[in-house]
Amino acid sequence: MNAADKTVVAGAATADALRFLAADAVQQAKSGHPGAPMGMAEMADVLWRRHLRHNPADPHWLDRDRFVLSNGHASMLLYSLLHLTGYDLPIGQLKQFRRLHARTPGHPEVGLTPGVETTTGPLGQGLAHAVGMALAEKMLAASFNRPGHDVIDHHTYVFVGDGCLMEGISHEVCSLAGTLGLGKLIVFYDDNGISIDGDVKGWFTDDTPRRFAAYGWNVIAAVDGHDAAALDRAIIDARSQHARPTLICCKTVIGNGAPTKAGGHDVHGAPLGVDEIAAMRIERKWSAAPFEIPAPIAAAWDARAAGRASQAAWGARFAAYRAAFPELAAELERRSAGALPAGLAGQLAQLVREPGDLHNKVATRKASQVVLEHISRQLPEFFGGSADLTGSNLTNVKASRPVQRDGSGNYLSYGVREFGMAAIMNGIALHGGYIPYGGTFLTFSDYSRNAIRMAALMKQRVIHVLTHDSIGLGEDGPTHQPVEHMASLRLIPNNWLWRPCDGAETAVAWQAALQRADGPTCLVLSRQALAPFGRTAAQLGAIALGGYVLVDCAQPHVVLIATGSEVEIAVAAARQLALEEVAVRVVSMPCVETFYAQDKVYRESVLPPGVPRVSVEAGVTWFWRAVVGERGMTVGIDSFGESAPAEQLYAHFDITPARVAECALAVIRGR
Amino acid sequence: MNAADKTVVAGAATADALRFLAADAVQQAKSGHPGAPMGMAEMADVLWRRHLRHNPADPHWLDRDRFVLSNGHASMLLYSLLHLTGYDLPIGQLKQFRRLHARTPGHPEVGLTPGVETTTGPLGQGLAHAVGMALAEKMLAASFNRPGHDVIDHHTYVFVGDGCLMEGISHEVCSLAGTLGLGKLIVFYDDNGISIDGDVKGWFTDDTPRRFAAYGWNVIAAVDGHDAAALDRAIIDARSQHARPTLICCKTVIGNGAPTKAGGHDVHGAPLGVDEIAAMRIERKWSAAPFEIPAPIAAAWDARAAGRASQAAWGARFAAYRAAFPELAAELERRSAGALPAGLAGQLAQLVREPGDLHNKVATRKASQVVLEHISRQLPEFFGGSADLTGSNLTNVKASRPVQRDGSGNYLSYGVREFGMAAIMNGIALHGGYIPYGGTFLTFSDYSRNAIRMAALMKQRVIHVLTHDSIGLGEDGPTHQPVEHMASLRLIPNNWLWRPCDGAETAVAWQAALQRADGPTCLVLSRQALAPFGRTAAQLGAIALGGYVLVDCAQPHVVLIATGSEVEIAVAAARQLALEEVAVRVVSMPCVETFYAQDKVYRESVLPPGVPRVSVEAGVTWFWRAVVGERGMTVGIDSFGESAPAEQLYAHFDITPARVAECALAVIRGR
Repeated sequence: MNAADKTVVAGAATADALRFLAADAVQQAKSGHPGAPMGMAEMADVLWRRHLRHNPADPHWLDRDRFVLSNGHASMLLYSLLHLTGYDLPIGQLKQFRRLHARTPGHPEVGLTPGVETTTGPLGQGLAHAVGMALAEKMLAASFNRPGHDVIDHHTYVFVGDGCLMEGISHEVCSLAGTLGLGKLIVFYDDNGISIDGDVKGWFTDDTPRRFAAYGWNVIAAVDGHDAAALDRAIIDARSQHARPTLICCKTVIGNGAPTKAGGHDVHGAPLGVDEIAAMRIERKWSAAPFEIPAPIAAAWDARAAGRASQAAWGARFAAYRAAFPELAAELERRSAGALPAGLAGQLAQLVREPGDLHNKVATRKASQVVLEHISRQLPEFFGGSADLTGSNLTNVKASRPVQRDGSGNYLSYGVREFGMAAIMNGIALHGGYIPYGGTFLTFSDYSRNAIRMAALMKQRVIHVLTHDSIGLGEDGPTHQPVEHMASLRLIPNNWLWRPCDGAETAVAWQAALQRADGPTCLVLSRQALAPFGRTAAQLGAIALGGYVLVDCAQPHVVLIATGSEVEIAVAAARQLALEEVAVRVVSMPCVETFYAQDKVYRESVLPPGVPRVSVEAGVTWFWRAVVGERGMTVGIDSFGESAPAEQLYAHFDITPARVAECALAVIRGR
Repeated sequence: MNAADKTVVAGAATADALRFLAADAVQQAKSGHPGAPMGMAEMADVLWRRHLRHNPADPHWLDRDRFVLSNGHASMLLYSLLHLTGYDLPIGQLKQFRRLHARTPGHPEVGLTPGVETTTGPLGQGLAHAVGMALAEKMLAASFNRPGHDVIDHHTYVFVGDGCLMEGISHEVCSLAGTLGLGKLIVFYDDNGISIDGDVKGWFTDDTPRRFAAYGWNVIAAVDGHDAAALDRAIIDARSQHARPTLICCKTVIGNGAPTKAGGHDVHGAPLGVDEIAAMRIERKWSAAPFEIPAPIAAAWDARAAGRASQAAWGARFAAYRAAFPELAAELERRSAGALPAGLAGQLAQLVREPGDLHNKVATRKASQVVLEHISRQLPEFFGGSADLTGSNLTNVKASRPVQRDGSGNYLSYGVREFGMAAIMNGIALHGGYIPYGGTFLTFSDYSRNAIRMAALMKQRVIHVLTHDSIGLGEDGPTHQPVEHMASLRLIPNNWLWRPCDGAETAVAWQAALQRADGPTCLVLSRQALAPFGRTAAQLGAIALGGYVLVDCAQPHVVLIATGSEVEIAVAAARQLALEEVAVRVVSMPCVETFYAQDKVYRESVLPPGVPRVSVEAGVTWFWRAVVGERGMTVGIDSFGESAPAEQLYAHFDITPARVAECALAVIRGR
């Protein structure tokens, strides 16, 4: 596309430039993965020099093609491509591969390196991100394009290896991509027959083309991954497809170019060695020193002029669009920038303050749905879904319309695919234009856990609606009763978990999740109905601080700290203790992370030093020992749950006002 | 097989018995899932009455067929089958469905209900357990059968729904089952076209027969799941297959039999209602009251006599086998009982005490491999593997031989399938005859997390070898650096996590994992080399207590508590502090759970009350606040890691002797 003329100049040498950069950088770093970059050199050469539409000067250009390296250990391939095509990644950075503070870490990290679209390494998830990106592109195009004005029109290209395709998440997301008909998703399978344990024949014998045909994909089988012309034909074929995603199966040799090591698994995850690299230089007639690229080859790679022209042409089209549809253009720009509509925060604050459905005795999952109704009216980029639990998670609203193959709709039933959902949401957020939220049961956050972690690492605004949050779900029993999940989700750096106790806290939690532009939020919600609490205006305002005094007294003898459905237990205990003239403060702490991010003065105003504490949460207690300290006590559950009606379970596990009161008296007495 | 004659008696009424038991029990419980049991009634009827080889009087009969209900929400189907065929599950238990302390919980739980082979509910995992069972059967048969003596010869039957097949884990384990040629695995797909969000066409359009053909399975497509004769033919076909697993695709109507609700998703997860059930009684000509089974139908279901005969016939064959191969028979019985060979514990203790490779300065993953060499020589049931990281996890030994399609071999390269591996190991353990262990990087325990939880819930001896346990892995960067993983794995009830600091602790950790018959163990091991510590005999003995004094002084001013690779940092800090005449005790705490399971006297002998504490672990610090208390301090990492050489990362994140010493002085001063 942008460089067809240059291929004559460079021939195989352009691919060799990738090979030598990768081999030399890994050698210099004394660690890394040379085999995959070398095996995918031609794939990258043909895609990036002939087809990829991008502008190295503006890695954030809205309508650029997306490129995802799902087999992220091949990071040196991507760094080489970015350097050679003209991104702000000088050769000095490649020399610093895998060094502290370099922009060339062991696996690609979005936000750190210009042109890296997503963080990859945990196999299969890059592919899922790409599915999310392609879905976002399709939906944005359906929403914003107008006849003669295709302002959103780009492809998502992905490289995957055997590992990605063995991972279960590849099934979840590729099945869904087929159903959704993501025609602009083009996946290159680096079929090199080798994984870390050796020849994959011993553990991976899928007929992969047949598998993807079963998903409704366009499959281009048996392409020679080192034959530029064959690759070019395959890409042209794939781009001509509009209704189905394409898998291009590229038969490659891992470490291709290495004279003695190519094709073996030793080339996967260790430097080639100086002798092998020297021999490769002779064999490939590559006389340039490490990290030096001969001028004609550098010129053949340089995509800056073409990229500038490409973006300029789009800019002209966008200007015409803006002239014809000024409001749409402004809205597209607002959404792409990730800015919330003016007024949303005020509307949510009003919802919290004023009487209404939110303040009925309802489950917090139901209160969440009430909030969703309000938000979704204000926020067209709000994109909902559930992993086949819509009626339980209550993630849908009246205006929810299922996503169709034409890209219309605003709600996705992801199917029973928790991990896939979470990772696709990451991809949607990375693409931009949408704020995704998706529901499942809290217990199944185990399935999606690494994708939640990836959102936290990538600083993406993704909202997880995790309902049925404790033994309070009742009869479904221990497999469905999360016990350790809240605590362990809170331990993921940069992940926020809110567990509201009623409608007001639920609305504030949603507001916090939306306003948080640099990380994911887990909203943990009850199955069972919870009575609303009365609050002063100051208390309503304090919810956003993550923890605040809900019920107070003059000089507390003890502070009870609770979350979610256990707040009413703490309040009942306080009432009971008041009869015994024990002065009790009750602190509701819907977001522990946010509370501990407040300054010490505030924290100590809520939890006065020296006043003993008791925590109440229907989950593992170890987490709360950090809050209550040595003098404190915890009420919770440190075993698995049981199958029975919820009220019986609370009694059975002794998470009751009586037990809380008993602990309160014990800590006041010094245990 | 055992009941072909009875089908004449009962016809469709035997299936209706299942329908009414399920519908009535869910109605009585006011919660549960009637639709799936009703839709699968004929599948269950034909399989259980004509093919399943089992003995209700002995649910632990070694050579019984295994039946797994992977769509575990259909639990009432299984309870009905167990009750009707004669297991010790009286009708009173069915009336108590989903009640506290009943043996009929919301989802089936192994160990609680006789005849339940595994705990299911989290979709897809039951199927994975079945793959593990079928693999165990195949390997046991290959090891123990002799010509004319097929003492191990049973099938594994599984029911799965759309949900199981959407889950990623179904891809991982079915792909592997195809590669391994598990010919005695027979899977029934309850293809009812409905999941919770409604008609699956909107999110699940796989050509499932084609997908499974791509895995190398025998696929029997388009069977009418309500046609007993067609089902019978399919099962006969499947059982005639020996080289490939079979998928029988059964087209069914969810809630079949419900006059107005059949085929809709309302029938999935809520009682039918008294009116619907009454109408169903009329329509199906079923006059019996709830929980009453007409005598001829009860007789048609009763499998006790046939089961007794079946097991007796096998018993006679086993007696002949024992006569011919007494040692093999004894060994098979020992392994099936889960008893460790006499002498193993003593040998391991010797390994810990005596000089040898174990006590070199090596990574604990390498020390683990040394221990594995010793164990594997003593323990033929030891079954190793790795999710494609054998050379990194060092899970193989000299005698490791890859599992072949004929069932020979003792080591499985599971491919890049962490969740699948963990769940298959659960299935292997459930089957019996093997003690499975498998490796991956600690960071990818996120992928397998729910299977680790399931092992803990099911009390299964499964050993996870989780290497590359911290920022100490270096250049691979934050995606590969577990930070919160140790803490969050420790929070799973009944899961033990050991993080040894050198070879001696590694050997003790392995011993603890093997001796633990009622739950899983996570062995968390370093990538980097760690120097061995000298210990007295008493100290060596104390390792098994989970935490002990490694370096002591007369009257400690401060206690440093560390795990794994950070123990040497704590010891270095102690040395540094000694120069400043600060009396320091260093406690190594390789297993926090085990330490806190000791009595208070021991715990306080190690961590004297009143002496301030500092913890050191290259992971999130919140977990350790519970150990160090309010006066204590923690050294660790509360952000994501970075890509750089390990030594630089320890300095960068300030996990150093100097920092530990600084904290020690601070806590002594009262901060």
